[in-house]
Amino acid sequence: MTEESVEFAGQTITRAELIYEGKAKQVFATNDPTIIWMHYMDQVTALNGKVKEEYAGKGALNSRISNLLFTYLADQGINHHWLGSVSETDELVKKVAIIPLEVVTRNYTAGHFVSRFGVKAHEKLEPRVQELYYKSDELDDPFMNDSQAISLGFASRQDLSTVYALADQVNELLVAIFNKINITLVDYKLEFGRLADGQIILADELSPDNMRLLDKETGKSLDKDVFRQKQGDLRLGYQDVLNRLEESLK
Amino acid sequence: MTEESVEFAGQTITRAELIYEGKAKQVFATNDPTIIWMHYMDQVTALNGKVKEEYAGKGALNSRISNLLFTYLADQGINHHWLGSVSETDELVKKVAIIPLEVVTRNYTAGHFVSRFGVKAHEKLEPRVQELYYKSDELDDPFMNDSQAISLGFASRQDLSTVYALADQVNELLVAIFNKINITLVDYKLEFGRLADGQIILADELSPDNMRLLDKETGKSLDKDVFRQKQGDLRLGYQDVLNRLEESLK
Ligand SMILES: Nc1ncnc2c1ncn2[C@@H]1O[C@H](COP(=O)(O)OP(=O)(O)O)[C@@H](O)[C@H]1O
Ligand SMILES: Nc1ncnc2c1ncn2[C@@H]1O[C@H](COP(=O)(O)OP(=O)(O)O)[C@@H](O)[C@H]1O
Ligand SMILES: [Mg+2]
Ligand SMILES: [Mg+2]
Repeated sequence: MTEESVEFAGQTITRAELIYEGKAKQVFATNDPTIIWMHYMDQVTALNGKVKEEYAGKGALNSRISNLLFTYLADQGINHHWLGSVSETDELVKKVAIIPLEVVTRNYTAGHFVSRFGVKAHEKLEPRVQELYYKSDELDDPFMNDSQAISLGFASRQDLSTVYALADQVNELLVAIFNKINITLVDYKLEFGRLADGQIILADELSPDNMRLLDKETGKSLDKDVFRQKQGDLRLGYQDVLNRLEESLK
Repeated sequence: MTEESVEFAGQTITRAELIYEGKAKQVFATNDPTIIWMHYMDQVTALNGKVKEEYAGKGALNSRISNLLFTYLADQGINHHWLGSVSETDELVKKVAIIPLEVVTRNYTAGHFVSRFGVKAHEKLEPRVQELYYKSDELDDPFMNDSQAISLGFASRQDLSTVYALADQVNELLVAIFNKINITLVDYKLEFGRLADGQIILADELSPDNMRLLDKETGKSLDKDVFRQKQGDLRLGYQDVLNRLEESLK
């Protein structure tokens, strides 16, 4: 993380104080109150941070994949926070007030869905499943329903409708692009936030840290499950995803 | 359980084979395929059946409370399965195809809601919270959301709207009657089922086995929590609830 300022849309954006250090990214303020500076770290975690490791270059892979996917979604009319890259690992995004909910879409059964409901893994879900998790490290990101989220004041019914509709638009587009590159998008997590004017947009990142991706030919994981299940160097899968996306989106 | 048949609506209803023995009730077929015979047992369980005990007279208390509440709800226009009592512990109900979902309404925080979301106990929830749990002893009745219930085929979106609307009508009426008898209805579980013509009605039981009830004066539990928390003989609370309901509804 060498850069400290960057030219962006005719103004100089300078990195200011660290606002938040999460499990995968550092978030900095800038001299523009509407813009934040995100640094993708090489750290990988599992089990809500209980397991941790460094993989040099992982941050750059995620930043690049995320940027490609945000650009693709923007071309298809999805409003999101991404503004531009500063370096291989750093980017500028629109500052939002994050809705403290992880919005998970499941196209196929996997993970907790399988153990929780006693179903087989990798079965197609029709219709796709949408889930909310309360973003809270202390509480281990508990699964919650709409009624709970509304009553606890995390979002209004109208907010949730907006979020679910956006998540469905994103899902259609992501499924399409991953199908094209011979990858099954099993499930993934999105975050949404509010701009100052109240508009809800897609935020955070779109990377194999937050997705389950299976190579359609070999059935192999190309995502963080490789780390979770100690199957080797997760960067191989991330690099493969990046290569295919670059090939397809160039 | 001595009765083997009973006169009901001009016909003789005879108890036939045991269809299902649950944790709290035995369910028998009858000579009328649209009617089942329910026997309330004295068994009390906690932790999904891992803890079990007998309390002589508990079944009769629950049957009586349930009948009073079903009759009260019917008077206010709620469609339900209850047809009539056979004895202190036995009743006839309309046979339905049970929707395999426990529908929980929470008016105040308690129990899992408190530990899951890190909130204080006995805080008023506004609006009330509605939750679904998949009725599955093997899976420990997992909490689920609408999207999961729909995708797994347990209910359609339209069914869930119907169920939630009915649950809200029931809630308004139950809160009112419990308020009248100086009891706080913290939370409770309902079950719904489909009649042969497809109509969804309220089924199962309405008793302190499935409710959290607090005396407004003393704050003491009048429900199965007395058993779960080993605070003494749960029948005292159940009897108190029954006495107050009988006084108020007579
Ligand atoms: N556009 C944005 N504005 C403000 N905060 C954001 C934005 N996009 C993402 N965030 C937040 O920044 C943090 C990113 O760091 P990360 O390491 O992913 O955190 P976590 O460990 O909480 O997942 C997250 O808390 C995320 O909600
Ligand atoms: N009207 C009805 N028709 C058919 N089944 C019913 C009806 N009402 C309740 N049931 C079912 O009868 C069973 C009652 O037994 P219970 O001891 O409460 O079972 P459980 O241990 O599954 O809670 C439950 O499975 C419930 O879903
Ligand atoms: Mg994150
Ligand atoms: Mg039951």
